[in-house]
Amino acid sequence: MRFQAPESLSEQIAQHLGQRIMTGELKPGERIQELKVAGDLNVSRGSVREALLILQRRHLVEIFPRRGAVVSRLTPELVNSLYDIYIDLLCMLGRKVMERWSSQELAGIVGQARELQAVTDALNSSGGDAAEQVIEAGFGVMRYAYTLVDNPFLEETLENFRPAISRTYFVALENFREELTETGRFFTDVADAAVNGDADKVEAAIIRFGEHQRHQVLSILREEASA
Amino acid sequence: MRFQAPESLSEQIAQHLGQRIMTGELKPGERIQELKVAGDLNVSRGSVREALLILQRRHLVEIFPRRGAVVSRLTPELVNSLYDIYIDLLCMLGRKVMERWSSQELAGIVGQARELQAVTDALNSSGGDAAEQVIEAGFGVMRYAYTLVDNPFLEETLENFRPAISRTYFVALENFREELTETGRFFTDVADAAVNGDADKVEAAIIRFGEHQRHQVLSILREEASA
Repeated sequence: MRFQAPESLSEQIAQHLGQRIMTGELKPGERIQELKVAGDLNVSRGSVREALLILQRRHLVEIFPRRGAVVSRLTPELVNSLYDIYIDLLCMLGRKVMERWSSQELAGIVGQARELQAVTDALNSSGGDAAEQVIEAGFGVMRYAYTLVDNPFLEETLENFRPAISRTYFVALENFREELTETGRFFTDVADAAVNGDADKVEAAIIRFGEHQRHQVLSILREEASA
Repeated sequence: MRFQAPESLSEQIAQHLGQRIMTGELKPGERIQELKVAGDLNVSRGSVREALLILQRRHLVEIFPRRGAVVSRLTPELVNSLYDIYIDLLCMLGRKVMERWSSQELAGIVGQARELQAVTDALNSSGGDAAEQVIEAGFGVMRYAYTLVDNPFLEETLENFRPAISRTYFVALENFREELTETGRFFTDVADAAVNGDADKVEAAIIRFGEHQRHQVLSILREEASA
């Protein structure tokens, strides 16, 4: 792998390392050595330092003053903390969409959500390792909601949590077949509630899905710990 | 000013620049030139780049691929977006405190809040430019709440918004005498509601104070725009 386009070099390095952390290739607690990464990727140490700051912002690494960067841990406590704030922010996103837009105007997002359900259904019957596609499609709906709400701080904060949430989805991959059904159901629920202008049901669907995901991830972590 | 302690050099630079942005010495939209800052502070360009990434995380600068770093803008729309998410997160903090702790156990935070009211009353009667002290004391209560809730993601996200919120407080300084009374009242309200175990009232007090601050900042911005 080679890196070009100097203006976003640190971003490219961050995405490369971030992908390896999300998929579990780099394990929680593992040290990331600036010099080694710089050597492996043939980039400057400064660019790697900047990339690590970006990953810290995305909750994938922790940086300690004298010890350097470590892949952030993934304990039940941290998963709970992560899902607490993530579900809260998603509810805020849903609430703002419903405050700002009428059910008629929501046709776009509803169309996307329904399309997504078709995708999950197709993937579900075909089987196979389609995790990344579904995760991406789900975040696509979220990105569409950002454009409706137009709050750059909410968008940035949710985007900064997205990689850490993705990592937990990858952890739950083993149960993925059920996950696809559940994900499809979530998007139908949200789409129906939005079309009916029912903000409370939008929020309830977000919470139900978020809590379901949290539960799945926690049960896998517990299995791993007892294995 | 000289900088030492290499392990946190970029953090020191970030705090130095952040202070100048918060107090309005560096104006919204103003460019921050890496080379000039590096020369002025006698530090490496890499350290300045890292500091700018830290300030981006704290919502005080925006970094554009080819144009470099700019002090983040302060428009009514951005103030509204900022207060929307900040109030939401503060409510989450308050809710979590109330979920986790009984009114008896909340004696500590209530004591702090009451102390703060004494401080604001004293400052109010002595007059003078005491903004920073009150802002700091208020954030002290928030930091105490973090220890009760123990959610590192919520803490980090709120802390990353703190500098941008501080900047808006500084904007509202002209009205500061009223602000002190309002701030004191807020802490009494929260303390009373917490002691009574009334989570709804805690949330209502947070929203009332947050909306009051938002309103003050917006009215100053409008005055400035029409001046």
